[in-house]
Amino acid sequence: MRAHIITIGDEILIGQIVDTNSAFIAKELDKIGVEVYQISSISDNKQHILDSLESAEKTADLVILTGGLGPTKDDITKHTLCEYFDDTLVEDKAVLEHIENLFKHHVNRPILPANRSQALVPSKASVLKNTYGTAPGMWITSGDTVFISMPGVPFEMMAIMTEEIIPRIQREFNRPFIVHRTLQTYGVGESEIAAIIKDWENNLPPSIKLAYLPALGKVRLRLSTKGADKAILDKDLDDQIALLNLLIGDIIVGYDDGESIEHMVGNLLVKNEKTLAVAESCTGGRIAAAITAIPGVSSYFKGGMVTYATHSKVELLKIDQALIDKHSVVSGEVAEAMAEAVRNWYKADFAVSTTGNAGPSKGDSDAEVGTVFIGIATPTHVFSVKYNMGNHRERVVSKTVYKAFELLQKEILKN
Amino acid sequence: MRAHIITIGDEILIGQIVDTNSAFIAKELDKIGVEVYQISSISDNKQHILDSLESAEKTADLVILTGGLGPTKDDITKHTLCEYFDDTLVEDKAVLEHIENLFKHHVNRPILPANRSQALVPSKASVLKNTYGTAPGMWITSGDTVFISMPGVPFEMMAIMTEEIIPRIQREFNRPFIVHRTLQTYGVGESEIAAIIKDWENNLPPSIKLAYLPALGKVRLRLSTKGADKAILDKDLDDQIALLNLLIGDIIVGYDDGESIEHMVGNLLVKNEKTLAVAESCTGGRIAAAITAIPGVSSYFKGGMVTYATHSKVELLKIDQALIDKHSVVSGEVAEAMAEAVRNWYKADFAVSTTGNAGPSKGDSDAEVGTVFIGIATPTHVFSVKYNMGNHRERVVSKTVYKAFELLQKEILKN
Repeated sequence: MRAHIITIGDEILIGQIVDTNSAFIAKELDKIGVEVYQISSISDNKQHILDSLESAEKTADLVILTGGLGPTKDDITKHTLCEYFDDTLVEDKAVLEHIENLFKHHVNRPILPANRSQALVPSKASVLKNTYGTAPGMWITSGDTVFISMPGVPFEMMAIMTEEIIPRIQREFNRPFIVHRTLQTYGVGESEIAAIIKDWENNLPPSIKLAYLPALGKVRLRLSTKGADKAILDKDLDDQIALLNLLIGDIIVGYDDGESIEHMVGNLLVKNEKTLAVAESCTGGRIAAAITAIPGVSSYFKGGMVTYATHSKVELLKIDQALIDKHSVVSGEVAEAMAEAVRNWYKADFAVSTTGNAGPSKGDSDAEVGTVFIGIATPTHVFSVKYNMGNHRERVVSKTVYKAFELLQKEILKN
Repeated sequence: MRAHIITIGDEILIGQIVDTNSAFIAKELDKIGVEVYQISSISDNKQHILDSLESAEKTADLVILTGGLGPTKDDITKHTLCEYFDDTLVEDKAVLEHIENLFKHHVNRPILPANRSQALVPSKASVLKNTYGTAPGMWITSGDTVFISMPGVPFEMMAIMTEEIIPRIQREFNRPFIVHRTLQTYGVGESEIAAIIKDWENNLPPSIKLAYLPALGKVRLRLSTKGADKAILDKDLDDQIALLNLLIGDIIVGYDDGESIEHMVGNLLVKNEKTLAVAESCTGGRIAAAITAIPGVSSYFKGGMVTYATHSKVELLKIDQALIDKHSVVSGEVAEAMAEAVRNWYKADFAVSTTGNAGPSKGDSDAEVGTVFIGIATPTHVFSVKYNMGNHRERVVSKTVYKAFELLQKEILKN
């Protein structure tokens, strides 16, 4: 079963927003064995939508559209679907009732004609309930192809996808299993990894596909396979991973994509019954934000301080001004003092700190743009590591956040 | 001049990553008057790439590809381009030298055959320098269409785009100006706005396109136009915005997309010479991270505290345990105490605090999932506002961050 996702909206094509809807839809489909053949983002233009429907119908069994279902004049998806399927719009009573209810409880005014028009759906469509919004999803079967249309507002789309579409696909279609395993490696480049695992890669069965996913300082390897028997697929991949472990076990730092480094650090802390605190300067709260994005971190995350300006390091963390004057605010000594101070304040087992210059210009210190010190305080010792993270502000911060978790991970494993 | 962006990579189609490259490219092209007709994400499959090139060539003057240029076996873009253009690969001396240099300075080992193969480019291509990586960009002119291929690693792609491709398009092609204005409105739904501005919208000249961009609690209106004379385009849009201001001036809270709410708050603080501090519980550092993502905030951002667990509110912010026991940790009283405490700690003019339950389960309090209090402390008073942000953890946090800036903005404007 092959799907083509079409996201409609000029805001995507002028780069005003990043299309995150298609990644969500693709991931949900992948989980239930539907292969996404292509994702297309197109403009709010009738002819372009018609052409895209026609071209998608030729190669896909499932065509999923998002966007263009709002109540305003620039929303043309519904009318275009009617033109494509030679259909007319009819008012759906259940949808109208749902819209009236939403307005009664959340808007406190009677519905306008534009709102009422959202209850109009093509007569050939079956309605997919939109719990959180007024524009319903639609499911139209035409020949061998299913066309689905959803609003582009992400949380509305997500609910329709998980509550309505995924269960219905599972009920109505036979699908294979698609299984992926992603290995995270660290410290060796992709060409070098490829050289080490060359013979293994050349002997991979054709049913297993290998992909290299390089990123800053790390490479992920993804193995994918597809078939009717999940147990066999799992075993096939596990066997290959066992072979890979013999070759590059020393650089494999984790498995599975869902497992981010902050998850791994959190799990380690929970397992070892240890706690964490953070003091952030150049990362400005990003480490704390990454930790607290995970539910249930209260058990190990004691808290953080964002001491961005120099004086806040002195006033809040009580870092000695003389230490800053002597070594500069961007220094290993200050990073260590910050980590130690925040560890004591929060009475945590581990603490991490950052101080650096993310650019674009020099800040409270003379440190070169990209110079970062990460401090780590553990129950037994304090240390810091100096990095040069390049000259791209967002990259400097992202790399520092990642490095901070990596250093923490190693220390927690040691202690 | 019309462009079609093609991003290549199975990781996009299985939803493992969100394709941010195409939004960046689209935005850069839009700035110089190149209209993006379509964005397609396709798999690492030779036939699929060939079909997409053929179909894109029919409708676009500029076809931009990203991905599939790495040194490993799953990278097939270069060979596929050779097949499409009936071309062969030749070694580019300058690229080879650049690769050798990168390895000398950053990798400290001689290059492998796989690395050397990155210096191979189709003979018909001119090379686009990749400052940050080993895979060069390529520019191939074929008939009336220009084909450009770039690596998929975002920061490499971004540099090639801004340093090489944009200047070259500007040199070699005449393009119109594309001008957008985005108005941010707050508090009224899109159907109601549409009803208020209906006559104005119906009288818009055909050269100006209006789009409604609804999001949580706010609607952005985008006006777009295109033409040869930028001054005329600017005046046309300004005239329309003046008319819109007569109709909905009371709900317009800001202009221009580049201006995020944290930017607007920052600018207000700079203008009024005021400072800010934050104390975050349920937002876990996200407010501080949003502020410090902007360069040069040291002048107004005093710092933040992430007091996630209840005891850290008591220990670090010195919130009275009796107050927490009486009102619960998720309460207006505690939000106000947090805002006041952090304002005093950092000696800031304004402070904002958050306490709430982002879910998925109840935390340190009995508050329903989605209940959030935002506290604001100003030079003259302290107050808090209660919200129900729904039951989606990420949404609760995002909405809270946005609301916090919105409350701040209003207070700073008043003071």
